[in-house]
Amino acid sequence: MPSLDPKILAQHYVKSTRDIVETLAIRPKVLGLIASQDEPSLAYARATQQRFIETGMDYELKRVNRLDLEAAIDAANLDTSIHGIFIYFPIFGNQQDDYLRNLVDFTKDVEAGSQFWTRKLYANERNIEFDGALKKSVLPCTPLAIVKLLVELGIYSQDRAPTARPLTGKTVTIFNRSEVIGRPLAIMMSNDGARVLSFDEFGPLCFEDARPQEIDITRAQALSAADIVITGVPSPHFLQIMPAEVQPGTVCVNFSSYNNFHDSIIEHTPIFVPRVGPMTVAMCMRNALRLFQNFHQGS
Amino acid sequence: MPSLDPKILAQHYVKSTRDIVETLAIRPKVLGLIASQDEPSLAYARATQQRFIETGMDYELKRVNRLDLEAAIDAANLDTSIHGIFIYFPIFGNQQDDYLRNLVDFTKDVEAGSQFWTRKLYANERNIEFDGALKKSVLPCTPLAIVKLLVELGIYSQDRAPTARPLTGKTVTIFNRSEVIGRPLAIMMSNDGARVLSFDEFGPLCFEDARPQEIDITRAQALSAADIVITGVPSPHFLQIMPAEVQPGTVCVNFSSYNNFHDSIIEHTPIFVPRVGPMTVAMCMRNALRLFQNFHQGS
Repeated sequence: MPSLDPKILAQHYVKSTRDIVETLAIRPKVLGLIASQDEPSLAYARATQQRFIETGMDYELKRVNRLDLEAAIDAANLDTSIHGIFIYFPIFGNQQDDYLRNLVDFTKDVEAGSQFWTRKLYANERNIEFDGALKKSVLPCTPLAIVKLLVELGIYSQDRAPTARPLTGKTVTIFNRSEVIGRPLAIMMSNDGARVLSFDEFGPLCFEDARPQEIDITRAQALSAADIVITGVPSPHFLQIMPAEVQPGTVCVNFSSYNNFHDSIIEHTPIFVPRVGPMTVAMCMRNALRLFQNFHQGS
Repeated sequence: MPSLDPKILAQHYVKSTRDIVETLAIRPKVLGLIASQDEPSLAYARATQQRFIETGMDYELKRVNRLDLEAAIDAANLDTSIHGIFIYFPIFGNQQDDYLRNLVDFTKDVEAGSQFWTRKLYANERNIEFDGALKKSVLPCTPLAIVKLLVELGIYSQDRAPTARPLTGKTVTIFNRSEVIGRPLAIMMSNDGARVLSFDEFGPLCFEDARPQEIDITRAQALSAADIVITGVPSPHFLQIMPAEVQPGTVCVNFSSYNNFHDSIIEHTPIFVPRVGPMTVAMCMRNALRLFQNFHQGS
């Protein structure tokens, strides 16, 4: 079974976003801020710009020195002609990146990576009050991308009963518990009914119904129990997951820039998603549109 | 020259805080939240509780499971009988600790470690508007503790001319650029006139007038240029600073739980401060009092 390219799935979201953007009186404008100087990063930035433009939005790509990024975010927060801000991380590769992420005004945070939005997710606040009206929250784009991929792939149950949750009875093992991806993803999937075994370098936690619990479980046990394995360990030193470690039929998704699965996994699993990037960009578009409709359309 | 114990300097702040607390109609109450189970951490927590009680404030020390800390902070934020929140870090030892730090309501953040307050510092906003009045900002407690230590030690110039800045002409080398200590400290000391050479594992930056600049400088050059060296590398693998690396007369301050200076530094420097902890607690008291006067006294 070949691996699955999320690029194709992302097309669907580009189209549905474009259909709505075409109906708007004002074109939403997103500012992309990139501090990296290296050519692959710039090429990636130009590619995301191209995707946004395909939806009919304006997308200005701006190169800034990393030490000027803080001021650039402050300025973009105040600039009423800018409706969304997209930052190409990593910048400093440390805590300062989280500082920058949290600096983005929540009404313009298309990645939904600031604590304002993760906090809403953790508190299960699906709407926020703004200008006297309820507005739908946005969700962090990479976790949302992974969930939407699994939906598109038919992994989520289609049972429409009001009490049904689409991942009931499923076990999901996730290697990554960052505040931007792994923890929000564990919360989202456990909200959808899964038992989520979440690992980081300090050990495992088990999430059920969006609540973490301490658990004593090994990597081997968590892998063999999993219906879905999702990896995002940004290190070449992570011991790649071998086919023998997972049950036949396990869905495997990697969102790390390193492949955390051994290449032979493709031969042994019905679905292997080697990268999530294009769907993440698609979710950013979706968020940009929702933020525009929520917070900027009236201005 | 023996090393200097900040415990003695801290006494002064305990007394001046008590003098004001005695005049208040309501006793400020601080909640200390500790998730650690180990005895040294609990002993430290009880010691800080004792210091707070010496100032006349109430201090409730509460043990919580780390997975319940988020809910405990939310509850304390809403509890009007609690005026300050003190969290014993590290909890998870990763990004989630920053999430928790940022969860504390700014009116109760006695450590001033949340992004709300560091952002005020970086923007040099010395006051904030609250309930129609200007209130003095609070500063992150460990950087403030280090500055106050240097003031008490006479390192800050006493020139009272309006244009004089107390560290003009001084070079300060800092090993640590965390969002909670190293970066705020670099900003504060460069605001006071110093040229600050700031190192983290990714390299150096130079701060002047609260602005960072890229700089090409080695550890050896930065150490031999320094009037003041401040270290906070939480690792036993940091190559300890040797007496031969610094100029005679250099003031040395270590705030890491590991001594980042070689023991022989004491024999070669007029002032060596091996730990800052007690002054940090004193600054938390000072912040707790200011937050109470700013935001809770009227309630």
